Amino acid sequence: MNRLISLTTDFGTKDPFVGEMKAVIFSICPEAEVIDLTHEVERFNIRMGAFLLANATPYFPTGTVHVAVVDPGVGGERWPIAVETQRSLYVGPDNGLLIPAATREGIRHVYELTNRSLMRDSISSTFHGRDIFAPVAAHLAYGTAPIEVGEEITDYVHLSFAEPRFEPGGVAGEVLHIDSFGNVVTNISEEILERLDLSGKIKVNLRGKRFTARVVRSYSELREGELGVLVGSHGFFEIACRERSAVRRIGARIGDSLRVCGA
Amino acid sequence: MNRLISLTTDFGTKDPFVGEMKAVIFSICPEAEVIDLTHEVERFNIRMGAFLLANATPYFPTGTVHVAVVDPGVGGERWPIAVETQRSLYVGPDNGLLIPAATREGIRHVYELTNRSLMRDSISSTFHGRDIFAPVAAHLAYGTAPIEVGEEITDYVHLSFAEPRFEPGGVAGEVLHIDSFGNVVTNISEEILERLDLSGKIKVNLRGKRFTARVVRSYSELREGELGVLVGSHGFFEIACRERSAVRRIGARIGDSLRVCGA
Amino acid sequence: MNRLISLTTDFGTKDPFVGEMKAVIFSICPEAEVIDLTHEVERFNIRMGAFLLANATPYFPTGTVHVAVVDPGVGGERWPIAVETQRSLYVGPDNGLLIPAATREGIRHVYELTNRSLMRDSISSTFHGRDIFAPVAAHLAYGTAPIEVGEEITDYVHLSFAEPRFEPGGVAGEVLHIDSFGNVVTNISEEILERLDLSGKIKVNLRGKRFTARVVRSYSELREGELGVLVGSHGFFEIACRERSAVRRIGARIGDSLRVCGA
Repeated sequence: MNRLISLTTDFGTKDPFVGEMKAVIFSICPEAEVIDLTHEVERFNIRMGAFLLANATPYFPTGTVHVAVVDPGVGGERWPIAVETQRSLYVGPDNGLLIPAATREGIRHVYELTNRSLMRDSISSTFHGRDIFAPVAAHLAYGTAPIEVGEEITDYVHLSFAEPRFEPGGVAGEVLHIDSFGNVVTNISEEILERLDLSGKIKVNLRGKRFTARVVRSYSELREGELGVLVGSHGFFEIACRERSAVRRIGARIGDSLRVCGA
Repeated sequence: MNRLISLTTDFGTKDPFVGEMKAVIFSICPEAEVIDLTHEVERFNIRMGAFLLANATPYFPTGTVHVAVVDPGVGGERWPIAVETQRSLYVGPDNGLLIPAATREGIRHVYELTNRSLMRDSISSTFHGRDIFAPVAAHLAYGTAPIEVGEEITDYVHLSFAEPRFEPGGVAGEVLHIDSFGNVVTNISEEILERLDLSGKIKVNLRGKRFTARVVRSYSELREGELGVLVGSHGFFEIACRERSAVRRIGARIGDSLRVCGA
Repeated sequence: MNRLISLTTDFGTKDPFVGEMKAVIFSICPEAEVIDLTHEVERFNIRMGAFLLANATPYFPTGTVHVAVVDPGVGGERWPIAVETQRSLYVGPDNGLLIPAATREGIRHVYELTNRSLMRDSISSTFHGRDIFAPVAAHLAYGTAPIEVGEEITDYVHLSFAEPRFEPGGVAGEVLHIDSFGNVVTNISEEILERLDLSGKIKVNLRGKRFTARVVRSYSELREGELGVLVGSHGFFEIACRERSAVRRIGARIGDSLRVCGA
C-alpha cells in the first residue's frame, strides 16, 4: 500500500472542486496523504498539464498514485484510464495528459477504467475528477491491484513534446512553458547545450526577434534586470531576467520557435 | 475520534491566516487531517460560502468536523456556534453560513461556544477563526463531546436559498453561483427539470435577456463556444459554454432571476 | 521526532514548485505533516516574508521545522542555513528571512548547511527549495540532530523591523504590511498604544495625509465603510475599513511612516 496521491488539475482553487476530490479520497483511504501539484494549469491546456506533471513526478517516491485532470472532453467519448509504469500509477482522462510523465518512467500497462465498483455510486457527466478518478486513485492507494481497474488497452492517445533539431552552428527548439516568475522554458535540454559547447554569450532568435544573452549558472550571476539564459531546475534551457519577468521583456508565447547559436 | 477537519473561509491564501488556523489545530490534535474546501469565498459573502459548503459536505465521511468562517461580524454581537447534525459537526459564526449544509444533514443540536477552556488563552477580536473556531474544532476532532462546547440554543440565525417556482409551462428560479469556469449555476434541480420534461431545446429568460439553448448531458456534447444547459455536478441546472465562460457571454450575476420553458 | 513542517515561499501556486518540495519531503520523511503558511509572499520581498513568518510561528507546536524560501540570491554567494531556537528549527537562505521569527524564540545556534548527504544528489542552481531546504528539513523532522546539518556560524545576515519612536503626545511608526483584506498593519504594538492611553479618537498622519479615526476593538464596531484603527490579530495597531479595503481608501504603502496622537 502506498498512501501518497498527487493531484494536478485546471480546476482552480476558488470552487471546492479539489476539496470534494480529497473528501472522496479520504472516505475510501483514510490513511492517504495528498500533495497538490497545481490546480492552476491553464484551463483545458492539456499540453501544459502534461509538461508540469512530467517534470514533477520524478521527485515523488516509488508507488505514488498521480491523478491529473485537464479534461475538456469530460462526459464525452474519451475514456477514463489508469497507467501503470515502472515506478508509479497514473489516473486521468485518455487525452495524452498522463503520457509524457508515464513514458519517462516506462509504461507497463494502460487500462480503461471499467470497474464500476471502484467509482462513486452516482457519476455526474461533468466532474469525473470527483466521481471516477479520485475514487479509483484512492482504491489504488489503498491496495487495489492496477489490473482490477479495468481492461488493458493499447490504443490510448499519445502526446509528446517537440524535440529540438540540430542546425549548422546551433539548435532549433520551441518554448514549452512560461513559469509564474516569467522565465521562458524551452525544450532544449542541458545535454544539448553541452554538446554544442554554448557558453559565454549566445544569440537567440525567438520568432524573428534577435537578442544576445549571457549564459549563466544561476539568476544571481545576472545584474538586476539583465536578460540571461541558464539551465533551469528541470534541466531545460530557459531565458530569465533577474528579479524581473523575462516573458514581459521579450514577449514570448508557448509554442514559439527559437534558434540558439554561439555569439 | 474523527480526525478529518474541513476548512472554508474568505481569508484568501496570500496571508498566513489559514496556516495559523492549521498550526492551532495540529497543536491540539496532532493526528488531524485537514482538507481545504476553499479560502476564496467572495469576501464577506455569507450566502456564497453557505452554498459551496452545502454542496461539498455530502462528499465527506461521517463524523467530519467542518469549520467555516465568512464573518463580517467578528468580534461583535454574533455568537460563535457549533452544530451537531445526523452525520457531521460544524463550527463557525452564527450568521447562517453553516445552516444550509447542516439542514441537509438534519440538525440535532446547535450550541453557542461558551466553554472558554477549549479556546486559545488569548482571543483577538478580529480573528476568531484562529482563536475560537480552529481550537474548538480540533478538540471535537480529538474526541470532546459536542455537548461540552457550550450551551444549547434554538434562536440561531437561519439562512436558506430561494426555491424555484412552477409557472405555466416552465419554472422560475434564480442564479445561485457562478463557478470559476464561468458556468452559471441556478437553484433549479435535476428533479424539477425532469418533472417539466424539458429536453431538446429550452428557452431561457434571464433578467429580460432571452436565448434558446440546447439541453445536453455534458460539456463535450456542445460545439466549442456553443451555449448550452445541463445538470451540473451538484445536481443543479446550469448554463455553460464549451471551453468558454458562459457568464462572460450572457452577463449573469448571482441573484438574477430566470425563467425556463420548453422551446 | 517532530513530524510538523511549515512552508513559506514566494513561489506562487501556479507552478508545481511547492508540490515538488513536498514530494521530496515525503520521500525522506513519510510521516511528515506539512502546513503551507503562504506561497504568495511578494516576489523577492524578504522583509514581507520575514514579517509573515515571525507573526505565524508562535502558533505552531514546539519542535516544528519551518522552511522559508524568498531567495533572490539562489545559486550565488549566500549560504543555506538552519537556525535552532528555544522551540523550533528554521531552514532557508542566509538573507535575514528567518531571523525575526527565530529571534523572537531565542536563537541557540545557526548552522551553514554543509552536510551534502542530507541534500538531493543533484542540486540545481535555481531551486534550492527543492534540492537543499526541503530535504534538510525532512531529515530534521525525521530526527537528524541540528548539529549534523553543518558548521556553526555567527556571521549570518541580520534583519529587524523598525521600532516605533515616542514623540511628544504620540508615536512615530511605519507601515509593515498590508494584508489581503486591505488592512494597513503598522509596527506599533498594543503595549505602546496602551502606554499612550490612545482611546476614543486619534489623529493619524500618514506620509503627510492626515485623518481622524475611531479606536475600536473589532471591525464590527465600525459602520460599513467607516475608517477605524484597532489592534489586529498579531498585536499590532492597524488601520481598517469595515467590509472595505482601507489601503484603497488611504493609499498607504509598505514602509510609509506614520505618526499617531490623541484627537
